[in-house]
Amino acid sequence: MSTPFDRLGPDLVTTDPDLVASYARDESALGVGSGLVGGAGPVAVVSPRSTADVAATLAIAHEHRVPVVVRGAGSGLSGAATAPDGSVVLSTRRLARVLEIDRGERLAVVQPGVVTGDLRTAVAEVGLFYPPDPGSVAFSTIGGNVATNAGGMCCVKYGVTGDFVLGLEVVLADGTITRTGRRTAKGVAGYDLTALLVGSEGTLGVITEITLRLLPAPGPARTLVATFPGLAAAGAAVAAVATAGLPLSMLEVMDRTTLDAVDRLTRMGLGEGGTPAAMLLAQCDDPAAALVLERMAVLCEAAGAVDVVSADDAAEGEALLEARRQALPALEQLGDWILDDVCVPRGRVVELLEGVERIAAAESLTIGVFGHAGDGNMHPTIVHDAADPASVAAAARAFDAITALALDLGGTITGEHGVGRLKRDWLARELDPGAMALSRALKDAVDPRGILNPGCVLPA
Amino acid sequence: MSTPFDRLGPDLVTTDPDLVASYARDESALGVGSGLVGGAGPVAVVSPRSTADVAATLAIAHEHRVPVVVRGAGSGLSGAATAPDGSVVLSTRRLARVLEIDRGERLAVVQPGVVTGDLRTAVAEVGLFYPPDPGSVAFSTIGGNVATNAGGMCCVKYGVTGDFVLGLEVVLADGTITRTGRRTAKGVAGYDLTALLVGSEGTLGVITEITLRLLPAPGPARTLVATFPGLAAAGAAVAAVATAGLPLSMLEVMDRTTLDAVDRLTRMGLGEGGTPAAMLLAQCDDPAAALVLERMAVLCEAAGAVDVVSADDAAEGEALLEARRQALPALEQLGDWILDDVCVPRGRVVELLEGVERIAAAESLTIGVFGHAGDGNMHPTIVHDAADPASVAAAARAFDAITALALDLGGTITGEHGVGRLKRDWLARELDPGAMALSRALKDAVDPRGILNPGCVLPA
Repeated sequence: MSTPFDRLGPDLVTTDPDLVASYARDESALGVGSGLVGGAGPVAVVSPRSTADVAATLAIAHEHRVPVVVRGAGSGLSGAATAPDGSVVLSTRRLARVLEIDRGERLAVVQPGVVTGDLRTAVAEVGLFYPPDPGSVAFSTIGGNVATNAGGMCCVKYGVTGDFVLGLEVVLADGTITRTGRRTAKGVAGYDLTALLVGSEGTLGVITEITLRLLPAPGPARTLVATFPGLAAAGAAVAAVATAGLPLSMLEVMDRTTLDAVDRLTRMGLGEGGTPAAMLLAQCDDPAAALVLERMAVLCEAAGAVDVVSADDAAEGEALLEARRQALPALEQLGDWILDDVCVPRGRVVELLEGVERIAAAESLTIGVFGHAGDGNMHPTIVHDAADPASVAAAARAFDAITALALDLGGTITGEHGVGRLKRDWLARELDPGAMALSRALKDAVDPRGILNPGCVLPA
Repeated sequence: MSTPFDRLGPDLVTTDPDLVASYARDESALGVGSGLVGGAGPVAVVSPRSTADVAATLAIAHEHRVPVVVRGAGSGLSGAATAPDGSVVLSTRRLARVLEIDRGERLAVVQPGVVTGDLRTAVAEVGLFYPPDPGSVAFSTIGGNVATNAGGMCCVKYGVTGDFVLGLEVVLADGTITRTGRRTAKGVAGYDLTALLVGSEGTLGVITEITLRLLPAPGPARTLVATFPGLAAAGAAVAAVATAGLPLSMLEVMDRTTLDAVDRLTRMGLGEGGTPAAMLLAQCDDPAAALVLERMAVLCEAAGAVDVVSADDAAEGEALLEARRQALPALEQLGDWILDDVCVPRGRVVELLEGVERIAAAESLTIGVFGHAGDGNMHPTIVHDAADPASVAAAARAFDAITALALDLGGTITGEHGVGRLKRDWLARELDPGAMALSRALKDAVDPRGILNPGCVLPA
């Protein structure tokens, strides 16, 4: 089939149906009964080698009004890289170079296709630190992380991806190449176009270069793990830690369902003497880490912890963290899964966990919850049978109930995965009409022909 | 004179010419030969008591196409609150309540007219910390700080105002009241409208409520002061500190001109044995502060410091900092002044200082430089005689030369004061045509009638 993109040449463009099909969807659960996928899909994949190639691709798309979906690793969980019928997929796989690391200015300039874990390794080799560590860090790309404003376990201390983006090179809808932001530590010249583009999920422009702020390498982290007989006790410990202002660099939680799944997968013995209702995992990379974690142990015990274990060295700390790292892999063993991503005020995490237990019971589903207790960002993971329409329907009801609960608790529908197509219809339940109209006005101003990832974030 | 705002009632509106005139300008040097002020000025001042009052004001302004200039303390230095002819000034002075401080969630909700120093005090009373500390902290308002994305001495460790803004209540150009952002620690639902509004200097909406992220109170800060015989030595020390990754919470610099002025004002004896070419002032509020400053002392001595003094306690630290706090007051004693606000890459601060020396010599002007060495944000302060046209012309040439130099060094025209009207024509020299067009498209989409602070940031 011929497409207007053929003039970019066969090195950049493929229309091979099998290859194009393999670029059609991300890791979101959109296929699960949503009706949002299953059509003809994209018509071509373009894999540019340069910013000029991206500009040429967008100029053609603009001229012919072809939807453009940018794709990094395709590991997104919200359907932002699930491509509509008739679209072109723009892959960043060949834009994958670390262009510069400057130790004195503590910044890196990278192309969007660099795998985030590789970037972290590259800057660590010169004594610097790029904190954001989404669960997908080993395979997701920095471009995708910027497009979704990804988070991770570091956020309780270090913030999210957007907090490290100083500037961007971007190709606008009509193919115009522009730069936003700066290389300096501070700067307020004009509107914060960089912040507007971060988290815009490919709907406002195509990011072709990213200037990232880096930090000095932190000290070695110390680790503490505490288990609790009930959710309320774990919640009390989290509240006490927050109110005491302990400078933790990580504060994660797993519920009993998740712990059971991890124990089944790993045989770590988490369930000896009965699986605890919740486990907290904390790290501190502060010079006073030992003292900080001693204070945390006292607070956990006062809140009713069954068991508190501190790691004496990094290797033991890593071993303790392994349970957390296995949370999603372990839940994946139980069946098909939808990973949710709500965020509630820190003080209401327990109410969310209790609510999810009720929702799981009402729908007779297994829903494990793990997540970032320190900032209230939870990942309820709904296990179901995608081949059974009744199970799929129950999972969809549970997903909606959890998202609604998060809003009722004063939270947000997405803490770090993005709106994508999965939660597009939820956005208008979180934002008021003024903010929705403002968002739409911005989108229409920046992309008047509506070619940039239409149907993602906002309705097409 | 009657205006369409009269229907808001005399409690909210004044058209008394003397009072209106007193609200016509901010603290910028726009009057200095710029031709930008001196016209008829604004026609009325509205002082709303509520968000509903703000909405009513904007609805009238929208209907009648009257320009609206929001004003906090009027202490801005870039002319963002210098009101054009025929405009209405919207004062936030009655919107000055701290609505909520939540210790567990570590956030505050405030109205825009709260003085930033008062906010810092209020949160400190419950053991929390709002870091941003612009030089105007004792009198500027949080609304103005948000509108300009203000900085201060804390930024080298803690970041700028925008890094602490979680959400906003905003009145849009047509009077629509909306909310952006969130109360949770994380959240990526839709475009980052909050970040777009932060730093937009009243050109995209009127901020009526701000939700601020707070931190636990830091430990006591330790202070170090080092003096250097030449700018290159001071620059080498800054570079060594940056490369070593020392976690400083402050790193300020003053040049010889500034030190001379401070010494003349305070008789502190800074010039004994000849005024040094530069002084660095550093703080660390880390648990390992003593060790950090010991390492800094070694690095300063290796770079050629004449003298390195560490404070043993907080009182002595405050005494050492007094010289820095007196920098602007001291330079103000020398004559009329224009305070510039450029930011360059950390490693190029010395080149900027040397360049300013050359520019001062060429124009036979006194130009003192002080600023935030840790993030490259410098405040060259041009002393001149506003009554002497030749001196004013020389000051204007020096201002332009300094701003151009900052851009040549890879920097920005404004690090923390904003573009306002003072640097509006400079914005197109920093941004490329694509970013300028994108900025204009956003402005036109959000404020189609162009009533929100027209002529600020972008041309009217």
